[in-house]
Amino acid sequence: MSNLFSMRDLSTKEIHEILHTAESFAKGEIWTPAKQTFAVNLFFEPSTRTKTSFEMAERKLGMEVIPFETGTSSILKGETLEDTLKTLESMGVDLAVIRHKQDAYYESLAGKFQMKIVNGGDGCGQHPTQSLLDLLTIKQEFGKFEGLKVTIVGDLSHSRVARSNTEALTALGSEVFYSGPPEWFEGDPENAQNYVDIDEAIGFSDVLMLLRIQHERHNTMMDLTVEQYHERYGLTPEREKRMKPESIIMHPGPVNRGVEIAGSLVESCKSRIFKQMENGVYARMAVIKHILEK
Amino acid sequence: MSNLFSMRDLSTKEIHEILHTAESFAKGEIWTPAKQTFAVNLFFEPSTRTKTSFEMAERKLGMEVIPFETGTSSILKGETLEDTLKTLESMGVDLAVIRHKQDAYYESLAGKFQMKIVNGGDGCGQHPTQSLLDLLTIKQEFGKFEGLKVTIVGDLSHSRVARSNTEALTALGSEVFYSGPPEWFEGDPENAQNYVDIDEAIGFSDVLMLLRIQHERHNTMMDLTVEQYHERYGLTPEREKRMKPESIIMHPGPVNRGVEIAGSLVESCKSRIFKQMENGVYARMAVIKHILEK
Amino acid sequence: MSNLFSMRDLSTKEIHEILHTAESFAKGEIWTPAKQTFAVNLFFEPSTRTKTSFEMAERKLGMEVIPFETGTSSILKGETLEDTLKTLESMGVDLAVIRHKQDAYYESLAGKFQMKIVNGGDGCGQHPTQSLLDLLTIKQEFGKFEGLKVTIVGDLSHSRVARSNTEALTALGSEVFYSGPPEWFEGDPENAQNYVDIDEAIGFSDVLMLLRIQHERHNTMMDLTVEQYHERYGLTPEREKRMKPESIIMHPGPVNRGVEIAGSLVESCKSRIFKQMENGVYARMAVIKHILEK
Repeated sequence: MSNLFSMRDLSTKEIHEILHTAESFAKGEIWTPAKQTFAVNLFFEPSTRTKTSFEMAERKLGMEVIPFETGTSSILKGETLEDTLKTLESMGVDLAVIRHKQDAYYESLAGKFQMKIVNGGDGCGQHPTQSLLDLLTIKQEFGKFEGLKVTIVGDLSHSRVARSNTEALTALGSEVFYSGPPEWFEGDPENAQNYVDIDEAIGFSDVLMLLRIQHERHNTMMDLTVEQYHERYGLTPEREKRMKPESIIMHPGPVNRGVEIAGSLVESCKSRIFKQMENGVYARMAVIKHILEK
Repeated sequence: MSNLFSMRDLSTKEIHEILHTAESFAKGEIWTPAKQTFAVNLFFEPSTRTKTSFEMAERKLGMEVIPFETGTSSILKGETLEDTLKTLESMGVDLAVIRHKQDAYYESLAGKFQMKIVNGGDGCGQHPTQSLLDLLTIKQEFGKFEGLKVTIVGDLSHSRVARSNTEALTALGSEVFYSGPPEWFEGDPENAQNYVDIDEAIGFSDVLMLLRIQHERHNTMMDLTVEQYHERYGLTPEREKRMKPESIIMHPGPVNRGVEIAGSLVESCKSRIFKQMENGVYARMAVIKHILEK
Repeated sequence: MSNLFSMRDLSTKEIHEILHTAESFAKGEIWTPAKQTFAVNLFFEPSTRTKTSFEMAERKLGMEVIPFETGTSSILKGETLEDTLKTLESMGVDLAVIRHKQDAYYESLAGKFQMKIVNGGDGCGQHPTQSLLDLLTIKQEFGKFEGLKVTIVGDLSHSRVARSNTEALTALGSEVFYSGPPEWFEGDPENAQNYVDIDEAIGFSDVLMLLRIQHERHNTMMDLTVEQYHERYGLTPEREKRMKPESIIMHPGPVNRGVEIAGSLVESCKSRIFKQMENGVYARMAVIKHILEK
């Protein structure tokens, strides 16, 4: 693997290798490239959380991180993404992490660069390092993926996480279900067949993977108030009590307290939400190490 | 001390210890944490000067400084400051420096984090590292605080510096006076009793501590032109000549030349204005060292 | 040389020394200052490309680069550039790279700072490190400057590059010609005498140095469509075929593909466009090394 654009780029063997490396970073292992290595994080769509996580990962690996202000870049003067990357490569940048609102923007880049590229999220498409940190969190908890029941709760159509995770979890032997307002699954026969009501899901799920309700992207509330949405589809304290004893709650953040999850549950016993953020750094370190060693 | 929110957090013994450490940094001492240490400067209110000073201090201590763009952060998606900090802590950040326009924003944060927190200025409240750099500058000059007469000239009600400094200087044995347009001290009986006219202040003050006239915050000019204000309340070259021989001029910057101080005095013999900026780096290094060692 | 404001600051001997140092960096030589050294890049006019190149150069020299957001700096509160620089110098900054839209902004700064200053471009004036990287690229190619014929194609009146390059190349023994729409050279008798039509220029030039058509700055198209401009004055694939065998194409970037140069020629055999970007890092490393060692 010389780039990471999509979870589809990874065989299950490679996923296991990356998770293994990430676990050793979580245990405190230190690895740095043999020579001074330069990274740039090109976030054409803002995401402080993901950008900070990549920056932490790069710094922990001893890399030099070159700031790049997408808001004032030559792209505004009509330069193509490819020419911007060629420029950075010419200057000596070894790794570019890119977030872009255009779906599959990376397809036009494949095979054109010596520089390594990691997709930090594209449109409503892939977000492979988020998937890997989610997988790492599950593996740390259960030691395996085979036979686990994972329910993703929220609007799949606007979630990069849901897409990447479903493919990877299925390949690794887990069973994936979906929950949320049934309207979101109409006209989506493939996912609709694994649709379950939230009250059913909490009874059998090993992992409850909540998605953020994306107020920013569209009106998803369907005439429900926030309170009504929470009561009907959210993880309330009452529902949490009915979850299986060894089950866990996940959420990619940032959390809407009192919408998809009750505020009191964010740091509860079953929650792995902040563990996921910690794991994000280890997963990204592992991806970068694998790519640089290639 | 595991955080520094306010000068009230510090005993006079701790103030003396921090100043002692700062003086050794000023003399060229080098200290770095035993392991890779991560800082983030969260400036929700812009202040290039203070932010740059903290960044210099952190880099001189060999820390990794993670950039954080408050303008595009998840806080805009409704995330609380506490959740943002929890996220950064989860990712491995060791120190957060925070500037926020809300008075005493830090009260809700106390006791909730392993990560260390330094207040880089809150609303019209505290700005403890500015106080410490001012104290360092006075100590370098006079070797003591006992018996010194310090006059603060400007609008106390909008100045973080004045608040923090008055408390600390009084505790350390100095006497603090105030000057400026008398209207600013009406309805403030506590400070009004130490009010002195500028022409009186320059006669007895060891330290003349000028504040910036905050055009940005409110209309402070009371129908005076800039020239009239300067003539009536500012430090003119004529007044400077009447100051005590060993006395000094201080100003937190940025300076309004020709308003609170004549332009020609900014780099005059008595001015410690650029010395204060140098000392800011040493004072912040000392605070961070004390906090990290705790 | 303790600052670099303009190519006029450099003797031809100094130019040759800097190019020699830059060539050794290009070959992988490593040099770092003896002690921790701080740089700040003050770009009051955005230029991601130049800023990133300086940042790469500074990091490759092992310097600490302090971020500085000109958009929120005290300059907005009325602070002068000189006071901002005094502040940074007081805090311990060793090197300031400045880009500013005001022509010759640096004239008022000369002799006032211990800190070193490099001009990263001023208004329509100088851009000395761009000239040096262009010279480096020519020297790598031809091993000399004497007797070379260099044609600059574009609007000289808005180009920092053209000004700096003409002076330096002439001093080094090359002959400089100009091409582009004749209207741009009317009323400019000095340059008009070296004006040549593009179809003539491609026949004799060793170096064809294209400038970016600055849509941003003014209406330069004179009622021509982009296609008409390209056909009449641009480097088309047909013209490229008529260039001398050993001649090269240069462009400071960012390129307007299909305007001043056909898109297919940007990465063609004769193009040194991405080589120039690589050389920019080495040229800036060399300038900084020479300045810091002074």
